[in-house]
Amino acid sequence: MPRLQPIPYEQASDEVRAVYDDIKATRNVPDVNNFWKYIANDPATLRRTWQSLKEVMAPGEIDPLTKELLYLAVSVTNGCDYCIASHSAAATKAGMTPRMFGELMAIIGMANETNRLATGYAVPVDPAFQK
Amino acid sequence: MPRLQPIPYEQASDEVRAVYDDIKATRNVPDVNNFWKYIANDPATLRRTWQSLKEVMAPGEIDPLTKELLYLAVSVTNGCDYCIASHSAAATKAGMTPRMFGELMAIIGMANETNRLATGYAVPVDPAFQK
Amino acid sequence: MPRLQPIPYEQASDEVRAVYDDIKATRNVPDVNNFWKYIANDPATLRRTWQSLKEVMAPGEIDPLTKELLYLAVSVTNGCDYCIASHSAAATKAGMTPRMFGELMAIIGMANETNRLATGYAVPVDPAFQK
Amino acid sequence: MPRLQPIPYEQASDEVRAVYDDIKATRNVPDVNNFWKYIANDPATLRRTWQSLKEVMAPGEIDPLTKELLYLAVSVTNGCDYCIASHSAAATKAGMTPRMFGELMAIIGMANETNRLATGYAVPVDPAFQK
Amino acid sequence: MPRLQPIPYEQASDEVRAVYDDIKATRNVPDVNNFWKYIANDPATLRRTWQSLKEVMAPGEIDPLTKELLYLAVSVTNGCDYCIASHSAAATKAGMTPRMFGELMAIIGMANETNRLATGYAVPVDPAFQK
Amino acid sequence: MPRLQPIPYEQASDEVRAVYDDIKATRNVPDVNNFWKYIANDPATLRRTWQSLKEVMAPGEIDPLTKELLYLAVSVTNGCDYCIASHSAAATKAGMTPRMFGELMAIIGMANETNRLATGYAVPVDPAFQK
Repeated sequence: MPRLQPIPYEQASDEVRAVYDDIKATRNVPDVNNFWKYIANDPATLRRTWQSLKEVMAPGEIDPLTKELLYLAVSVTNGCDYCIASHSAAATKAGMTPRMFGELMAIIGMANETNRLATGYAVPVDPAFQK
Repeated sequence: MPRLQPIPYEQASDEVRAVYDDIKATRNVPDVNNFWKYIANDPATLRRTWQSLKEVMAPGEIDPLTKELLYLAVSVTNGCDYCIASHSAAATKAGMTPRMFGELMAIIGMANETNRLATGYAVPVDPAFQK
Repeated sequence: MPRLQPIPYEQASDEVRAVYDDIKATRNVPDVNNFWKYIANDPATLRRTWQSLKEVMAPGEIDPLTKELLYLAVSVTNGCDYCIASHSAAATKAGMTPRMFGELMAIIGMANETNRLATGYAVPVDPAFQK
Repeated sequence: MPRLQPIPYEQASDEVRAVYDDIKATRNVPDVNNFWKYIANDPATLRRTWQSLKEVMAPGEIDPLTKELLYLAVSVTNGCDYCIASHSAAATKAGMTPRMFGELMAIIGMANETNRLATGYAVPVDPAFQK
Repeated sequence: MPRLQPIPYEQASDEVRAVYDDIKATRNVPDVNNFWKYIANDPATLRRTWQSLKEVMAPGEIDPLTKELLYLAVSVTNGCDYCIASHSAAATKAGMTPRMFGELMAIIGMANETNRLATGYAVPVDPAFQK
Repeated sequence: MPRLQPIPYEQASDEVRAVYDDIKATRNVPDVNNFWKYIANDPATLRRTWQSLKEVMAPGEIDPLTKELLYLAVSVTNGCDYCIASHSAAATKAGMTPRMFGELMAIIGMANETNRLATGYAVPVDPAFQK
C-alpha cells in the first residue's frame, strides 16, 4: 500500500462527491478540508463519519459554539494536532474570541491536572455522587 | 507509607480548614467532597489546586455550565471515574439536563473517533488553518 | 546531554552491530530503521527491545499480518506518528491492502468512540461478562 | 439530572425497541448488554452508534475475529474496563483462544512500550516510510 | 475463553514456578502479587516481562526509589489503578515518605496540565532545544 | 481569532513582563522559552501556571533532577513533543547524563507495557495493597 493521497473533488467518485457537496453546502465553504479528502480513500468511512458528525454537531440543547469548544477540549487532551488546528478554526468561525480560547485552555489544563490527582490519590467516589 | 486517609474537617489543621471553609462558602455546600479530603494530605497541593480551580472555573467569557461540560469532556476522555462522577454532579447543579448530557457524550464520542481517524490517516494540516 | 544522534552501522559497537545484524537477517532488509538507530544509544534497551519484539511478533496463533494491524491500532490510539508510519509500512509488507487499512481505521475510530461512551455513561459490567 | 438508569426492553420506546431488536437479531442474543441500555437514554446516540458499529464490524476484508481483537487492543490501550470485559466476551465468542488472548496482550504491551520509546527518543520518520 | 484465573504457586508449571521463585528471591517476598499470577496464564509473557522488569528496575545511574517514583508517574498518567496500588506499595518499601508522595502527585498534576497547554497553544519547539 | 503569536518581552504588558522577569531570575536564563511566550496571550494563565510550576518544582523532599525526570516521564507518556524537548533540556541542565536518559526511557517503556498488561488481564488489586 503506497502512501495515501488526498482525493480532490475533480477525481472523486460520484459517491464521494455527493458527500463533499453536502459538507460544502452545510458549512457554506468552497472546498472540504484535508480530513475529508484523506478519509475519502474509504468512501464508507467518509459517508458514515460525515453523517454522524453532521447529526452530532447540529444545533441542539448545546449551542454550536459550545460544541466546538467541547471538540477542542477532547482534541487537546488526545494531542491530535490536526484536530486542534481544524477545530480552532471552526470554533473561531462559530464565535470563539481570544479570551474564550484562553479560558478554554485553562480549563483543559486544570481538568487534566485534577484528573490525575484524583486518580493518583485513588479518591473513592462520594456516596452523594452515586445516587 | 500506609494507605492515605481522607482528612475530615474536625481533624484538619488551620491551614487545611481555611481552604475547606472557602470551598464551602464559594460553592454553598455543607461539606467538601472526597477529592479535597484526600489531597489535603498535602496542604500545599490542596491550597494551590483550590486557588487555581476557583480562578479557572469562575464566570468569565465562558459561562459556568459550559465550563462544567468542558471539564466533563476532558474527564471522560481521560477515563477518570471519580472526576466523571463529581463533575456530572456539578454540571447538573449548574443546569445540565439529561438531553444536554446525551449531546455532550455524543460529541465526546465523535471527537475521540475523528481524532484517531485524523491521526491514523496522517492528515496534514491545511494551509488555511496555519494562518 | 546534547541532542541524541542515530548510530549508523559503521559507528556501532560490536554489541549494537550484532543486534542490527539480527534485525536485518530476521526481516530481510538492507538496513535497520531509525527507531533502532536511536535507541541504540542505550545498547541494553536496544537488545532487550529487539529480543522482546522478535519473540512477540513471531508467527503464533495470531498471524503476522494481524499482529501488524494490532500494532497499528495501538499506535494510532496512542498518537505515535513514528510508529504509525513504520507499522503502516510493515503491515503493507505483510499484506495489508488499502481496503484493509480503511476497515482498520474505521474499527479504531469506533472503538475509541464507544470506549468513551461506556466510560462517560459509567456503564456497569454485565454479570454475564464476569464469569 | 439524577444518576442515569439502564432502559430495559419492557420500558423502551418503540424507537429504542427497534434498535434492541436489531441488535438481538444480528448477534443472535436474547438480550442486549448494559452498554446499549445506558446509551438508550439518548435514542439518537443509540441508533447512530448501533448503525455505525454494525457496519464497521460486519465481515469485510478483515474477518470478524480479527476485528474483535482490534477492538480489544484499543480498549486496553484506553483503559476502558467495561469495553475490555464486553469485547473479551465477544472475541471469545468469535473464536479467540486463551493462547490468542496471551499473544494479543503481549502485542498490546510491546506496542505501548515501543510507542513511548519512539516518542521519548524523538525518532524522526525514515524517508522510506514517507513515500 | 472463560474468565482467566490467577495461577497460584502450587498449581504452577515448573516454568512458571521458576519465575515466581526468582521474583520472590529478588524482592525478598513470601509470594508474588496478583499481576504475576494473572499474566502467568501466558508463561512466555510472564518470563519475558519479569526478565525485562528485573533488568530495567535494577540499581543503575538512577536509584531504586527514583525508579519507583517514575513508574508511579507513568501509572497515574495512564490511569492504571492496579499499577498505582502496587507501585505505591513498592515505592513506600523503597523509602517514599508521605511528603514525597505529595510532591510526586503535584508534579504529575502540573506536568499533565502544562502538557495540554503546550499542545493546545501549539507551541513550536525553541531552536535552542533542537541542538 | 487569528493564529496566536508569541509575545516577546519588548511587546509584553507590565503584568506579563513581571512574570517573564521572575522566570528569568529564578532560572538564571536570558530569555523565557516559547511555552511562556504563547500562554502569555492569556496573562492570568501565564501568572497562575508559573506560580504553580515554581512552587511544585522547587527543591523539596524530591530533588530537582528527579523532579525533571518525573516531568519527562509524564510528557513522554502523554506524547507532548514540545514538553519532551523542553524538559529534556531542563533535565540535562539539572544533571541528567545520557545513561540516565537511557534508563529513564527504559522505565517509561516498561511501565507503559505493564500498565496495559495489568489492565488487559483485569488484575484485581491484592488485599495487601489496600491496607
